[in-house]
Amino acid sequence: MAHKVSPLAPERFPDLPPIAGVRLGTIAAGVRYAGRVDVMLAELAAGTTVAGVFTRSKTASAPVDWCRRSLPGGSARALIVNAGNANAFTGTAGLQAVEITAEGVAGRLGCRADEVFVASTGVIGEPLPAERITAVLDTLSADLQPDRWAEAARAIMTTDTYPKGVTATADIGGTTVTINGIIKGSGMIAPDMATMLGFVFTDAALPADVMQALLSRGSDRSFNCITVDSDTSTSDTVLLFATGKAGNPAIETAGDRRLAGFRRALDGVLMEMAHLVVKDGEGAEKLVEIRVGGAATAKAARRIGLAIANSPLVKTAIAAGDANWGRIVMAVGKSGEKADRDRLAIAMGGVAVARDGQRVDGYDEAPVAAHMAGRKIEIDVDVGVGKASATVWTCDLTHAYIDINGSYRS
Amino acid sequence: MAHKVSPLAPERFPDLPPIAGVRLGTIAAGVRYAGRVDVMLAELAAGTTVAGVFTRSKTASAPVDWCRRSLPGGSARALIVNAGNANAFTGTAGLQAVEITAEGVAGRLGCRADEVFVASTGVIGEPLPAERITAVLDTLSADLQPDRWAEAARAIMTTDTYPKGVTATADIGGTTVTINGIIKGSGMIAPDMATMLGFVFTDAALPADVMQALLSRGSDRSFNCITVDSDTSTSDTVLLFATGKAGNPAIETAGDRRLAGFRRALDGVLMEMAHLVVKDGEGAEKLVEIRVGGAATAKAARRIGLAIANSPLVKTAIAAGDANWGRIVMAVGKSGEKADRDRLAIAMGGVAVARDGQRVDGYDEAPVAAHMAGRKIEIDVDVGVGKASATVWTCDLTHAYIDINGSYRS
Repeated sequence: MAHKVSPLAPERFPDLPPIAGVRLGTIAAGVRYAGRVDVMLAELAAGTTVAGVFTRSKTASAPVDWCRRSLPGGSARALIVNAGNANAFTGTAGLQAVEITAEGVAGRLGCRADEVFVASTGVIGEPLPAERITAVLDTLSADLQPDRWAEAARAIMTTDTYPKGVTATADIGGTTVTINGIIKGSGMIAPDMATMLGFVFTDAALPADVMQALLSRGSDRSFNCITVDSDTSTSDTVLLFATGKAGNPAIETAGDRRLAGFRRALDGVLMEMAHLVVKDGEGAEKLVEIRVGGAATAKAARRIGLAIANSPLVKTAIAAGDANWGRIVMAVGKSGEKADRDRLAIAMGGVAVARDGQRVDGYDEAPVAAHMAGRKIEIDVDVGVGKASATVWTCDLTHAYIDINGSYRS
Repeated sequence: MAHKVSPLAPERFPDLPPIAGVRLGTIAAGVRYAGRVDVMLAELAAGTTVAGVFTRSKTASAPVDWCRRSLPGGSARALIVNAGNANAFTGTAGLQAVEITAEGVAGRLGCRADEVFVASTGVIGEPLPAERITAVLDTLSADLQPDRWAEAARAIMTTDTYPKGVTATADIGGTTVTINGIIKGSGMIAPDMATMLGFVFTDAALPADVMQALLSRGSDRSFNCITVDSDTSTSDTVLLFATGKAGNPAIETAGDRRLAGFRRALDGVLMEMAHLVVKDGEGAEKLVEIRVGGAATAKAARRIGLAIANSPLVKTAIAAGDANWGRIVMAVGKSGEKADRDRLAIAMGGVAVARDGQRVDGYDEAPVAAHMAGRKIEIDVDVGVGKASATVWTCDLTHAYIDINGSYRS
């Protein structure tokens, strides 16, 4: 589990301020890992609304099932998350493990079990020993604090090499509100949904349906536009909680103009969270931004971008610093989306390498090679059939990915 | 280019007998590689019929365009193949390079240019120096022999670590016919089409439309069921040539009962060719057979199988000999195809590991771990929704894949 910290990691975990109505705690429950904190609990004030987006996997985990079922209630009083065991593909025992956990939390915090949101990450297919979690709930719930963001972000890590947090503020009708997000994710990262577990907290007062609209829209451009390895998880979960403690004016629709600033801030937080995951992609040495233009539709543009981003041949070339743009041509071709081979244009690091379906005249690879040697790789592709565009992000495919994934379970 | 020979390679190249009506030659033209044979030419007797299947890439290579255009004629007199440059994404210059090559061959062999089939494999996006090929055509065409199969198979290799050939015989209406196939492929291998370049020759007398029906059907179960890295090539080409020299009774439809034996033999040759490619998958240490049953349709079964086969997490676990079947659950879930999570069953090496959506009672990993340590890995998945099935083949994902693909171009 001890892998070197990603070279793309931020210098430090940012200062996440308290969010009125949120108290946090973490503890070592020994769910799977020995000697590390592996459970986090967030207590949410009465009146907290919730929105969520989840994996589209057909083999979704028990906690995902649980959250999906509770979400229509729109109300949340707690979030409990464990690392080390995903509680996925665990049958009825898995569902029972979620119930036992949620009821345990509900009993301590004085709320209903269906107001307790649950997320689990780690190995798939092994029964979750829920009793190890319930055994620590008394201790955990007795010491909840508003300033435990870094600890919470660290508690939910699996193969992550650094804890991930983002914060922002926004104005809603004259009231300043705060948004904090924490996220974990490193491997098994692919749309849709792209992250494993992400949690966003705000003190804004917003109805659940408004939050859902904002979260779904924001996720589509962030989490659903990143990939590490094309492997969609069974457990992907992003939850957005609003405690309402900021006391902003009442908002009833997602289209309310007073939400413009909040929406921008939230979108920014979601995007930054998504990027933090890609930057910690298993074995990542380089962050890759792929901008696809000239596509028939935005969906087609994203699919072409993801075909490039998921290509092992593209990713290994990038890892080697090789400006092997022929593999980008290949990936555009395999995407199955409409593209005009003979109008295709490609630039790397802002330098045109191909235009009108062939290499540019007098192509000089030197500036492109210099760009490829860096940490941030930029690829622009115009497929020459329309006006739609999309941007996706990925990382390179290195030896460390194989090392990490040959050893993760054992 | 000098990578160790795949541990999955056959002990030796099989003895491919002459096929009446086929003469072969190879030469070092210096297309890209220095000091190795990189061009092969097959002369085909007058009356040879041809069928072909090609990549579905939207950025297909110039030779693929050329073959597609010539195929409706149904008649072939020559095949010329070069390694080192794929002549893909090379614009009008690429098409001209094919024309120059085909005309050069046609001039030497006394046939029409559109009876010369052309295939190229290697780097994408660099102009093909066709003059290096035409410069050697006199020498090449002056020394064509019926017994150069091993040399021909070797001439078309790129990152392949061994030459690949298959032979079989069949009876058509009392006449014995022979089928020889040679193939190259190692990386950028994914349906559809799965191979890079495969060529099958027979002395049977068969109309082009009958051959096309046999080839399309046979490819669907062989080449379209293998994957190394999910990256569909720009250049995938399989051509089937029949010289007619065996003098078997005339056959007019693919459904003719007298073709049963030939169809079986051809299917066997195509399957064996496909397996030779997977066994030489870049960096392959293990051959993986994935049998999916209980699916809604055969297409769904294949897609689920390919989702497993293309999962980097599954492939790295297999490389590490880790029986991490949770990742198989994940891959089934991400395929998007109908699957009943709570009836899902998985076996590895014939040992049941999961049934009815959870790990089997008293699961003992020891026999599964022993199986995972071997060279041939067998995975059975029943998705519990129907009766359709499919089998796909892949290889593991190892460090060598990254080494090979970080260094291939340069």
